[in-house]
Amino acid sequence: MLIDGKPTTAIWPDPDGDGVYILDQTRLPHVVATVLLRDLEDSARAIKDMLVRGAPLIGVTAAFGLALALRKDASDERLRHAAEVLRATRPTAVNLAWALGRMTAFLQQMPDDLRPGASFALAKNLMEKDIACNAAIGEAGLDLLRRLLEKRNGKTLRILTHCNAGWLATVDWGTATAPIYKAQAAGLDLHVFVDETRPRNQGASLTAFELGQQKVPHTLIVDNAGGHLMQHGEIDLVIVGADRIAANGDVCNKIGTYLKALAAKDCGVPFYVAAPVSTFDAALAEGRLIPIEERNAEEVTHIAGMAPNGEVVSVRIAPKNTPARNPGFDVTPARLVSGIITEKGVYEATTEDLAALISPAS
Amino acid sequence: MLIDGKPTTAIWPDPDGDGVYILDQTRLPHVVATVLLRDLEDSARAIKDMLVRGAPLIGVTAAFGLALALRKDASDERLRHAAEVLRATRPTAVNLAWALGRMTAFLQQMPDDLRPGASFALAKNLMEKDIACNAAIGEAGLDLLRRLLEKRNGKTLRILTHCNAGWLATVDWGTATAPIYKAQAAGLDLHVFVDETRPRNQGASLTAFELGQQKVPHTLIVDNAGGHLMQHGEIDLVIVGADRIAANGDVCNKIGTYLKALAAKDCGVPFYVAAPVSTFDAALAEGRLIPIEERNAEEVTHIAGMAPNGEVVSVRIAPKNTPARNPGFDVTPARLVSGIITEKGVYEATTEDLAALISPAS
Repeated sequence: MLIDGKPTTAIWPDPDGDGVYILDQTRLPHVVATVLLRDLEDSARAIKDMLVRGAPLIGVTAAFGLALALRKDASDERLRHAAEVLRATRPTAVNLAWALGRMTAFLQQMPDDLRPGASFALAKNLMEKDIACNAAIGEAGLDLLRRLLEKRNGKTLRILTHCNAGWLATVDWGTATAPIYKAQAAGLDLHVFVDETRPRNQGASLTAFELGQQKVPHTLIVDNAGGHLMQHGEIDLVIVGADRIAANGDVCNKIGTYLKALAAKDCGVPFYVAAPVSTFDAALAEGRLIPIEERNAEEVTHIAGMAPNGEVVSVRIAPKNTPARNPGFDVTPARLVSGIITEKGVYEATTEDLAALISPAS
Repeated sequence: MLIDGKPTTAIWPDPDGDGVYILDQTRLPHVVATVLLRDLEDSARAIKDMLVRGAPLIGVTAAFGLALALRKDASDERLRHAAEVLRATRPTAVNLAWALGRMTAFLQQMPDDLRPGASFALAKNLMEKDIACNAAIGEAGLDLLRRLLEKRNGKTLRILTHCNAGWLATVDWGTATAPIYKAQAAGLDLHVFVDETRPRNQGASLTAFELGQQKVPHTLIVDNAGGHLMQHGEIDLVIVGADRIAANGDVCNKIGTYLKALAAKDCGVPFYVAAPVSTFDAALAEGRLIPIEERNAEEVTHIAGMAPNGEVVSVRIAPKNTPARNPGFDVTPARLVSGIITEKGVYEATTEDLAALISPAS
């Protein structure tokens, strides 16, 4: 998608073979800075320090990190070591472990001298697959948006989204944003309401940035305001991403998603989840079995932003030493989900409808 | 209640007659600063610049402001002028207009030379009535808390509150916090979860401050987290305040209240509103008729806090020029409200049960 009017992706290999470029997302929206990852250490640090975030993007970054690690030494030992270092950066990220496992299994079967080239090709392949997958989610969602827009009788379609399931969380297109960008390209008249998404503010800092750069009309609101807008008929559709989806359609996503789903149900607003099939966990019968990560309390008591002097600083918003709880995700019961938009089409959030999609054979 | 271990109220007359003291709430929780209001101008500025906030406290501050205005000149013209200046500080505050109207009507009927003394006595009377009213809300709520605690079989009673309906919004005790402080005094074992309450963060900055000073066990959470905690059985009761209550029991309160009420209903958690009878608007049939104030967009895009160097600064958390909407309140339908705790007891949120309470004769 666009930054400063130029098409870009969230990660891209240097054409001269010097390494892999990423955007430093910790500095967004205040500063757009690209960073060149030259080796294993750079890559591991980029993931650990969250210069890149979002499950798909983390997976692709790790894949390139492994390729960079093998450039000078592609021995079995180096391969094992590199995979270990990368896996330890974000222990709970499923895509990360999956990408590394897949690459390692493949590379182990070939002679050392083919590994550098093959690992780079594999990483590029993962990157391209992510783009294609998200584009397909976008197309599937576009049909839905077209139908909802028809009901608006010539008025703007107003979409609410939570957190950043945008292109910055993937390589390109995003998941929840893919239908929005496809709809924009198709000339549909739409407006996006962006939840701030405390505590890490991915909506205010990343989704608002993406949409602004892409010139998609949008409005930032606090997480508290979505219910009120739905009560007053100001939202036609909610689309969010997902971190994990259970076999019965329960959706684990950024904390606060459940509250928006409740309001959508109460106000008769369709509530859709956009996610690749890889997000489904066939082994997980229902959402309440998902362990919810408790994050650092400082994310609640402090907040970062740009001070009037242009410096980005973290300020404390609560009394010193205030105890805080910080669950990172919540689970939205399938009964509140109108449908799940995947690269294979839109599915109902029911065990029956999802069975074909997530069976091991598919 | 306590600040630094010493009992205080949110406003108090100077014993030497020099004026009236308030706490500068714009500087909380970072700095505890008392300010002496000496005249009409000081009082108007304190309300306008939100050094004092919360409907009951604004009303009492305006009453003292009127008394201060009449100290040197208690003519009809001065009385009219002073009431006008004070009324213009926060045009939408109902308590403010009510307190000024009541004082003016009374003072107009007496000779000029009695007005200075009488206005001060009236203001003190309003102040004391506010304290007594909130204490009575606390006693009514205490019974409820006792019953809920019994069901916990010896475990802590866990209460969620939104925004600051605390003693800092009144003269003392608060409304939503009154039952909590009474319960603490009665030795009940309780823990309060405090919603941050974006965009103005009254939970993080004021409620957390109050509870910390009072040594009530508490935990700060982001507004997104309450639903998740309720899903997991970690909240036994929600208590919030109210800005206005319709005749049918619909409750207008700080933006985000509706979302918590939905989660409480979905999870079977009792949802109570604590408010004085003066909050009821008998002329208002239902909540959706209440006009909702749209506040400054900068409250959404910027946030104030203490920087590492000890300075309190406002930082921008969204891309420059991001458009934002900022509705200040929402309406929780009566069907989601378990009951309303008033100084006259606990009532059901139904037209029938509330009729006696809010009839003109009561």
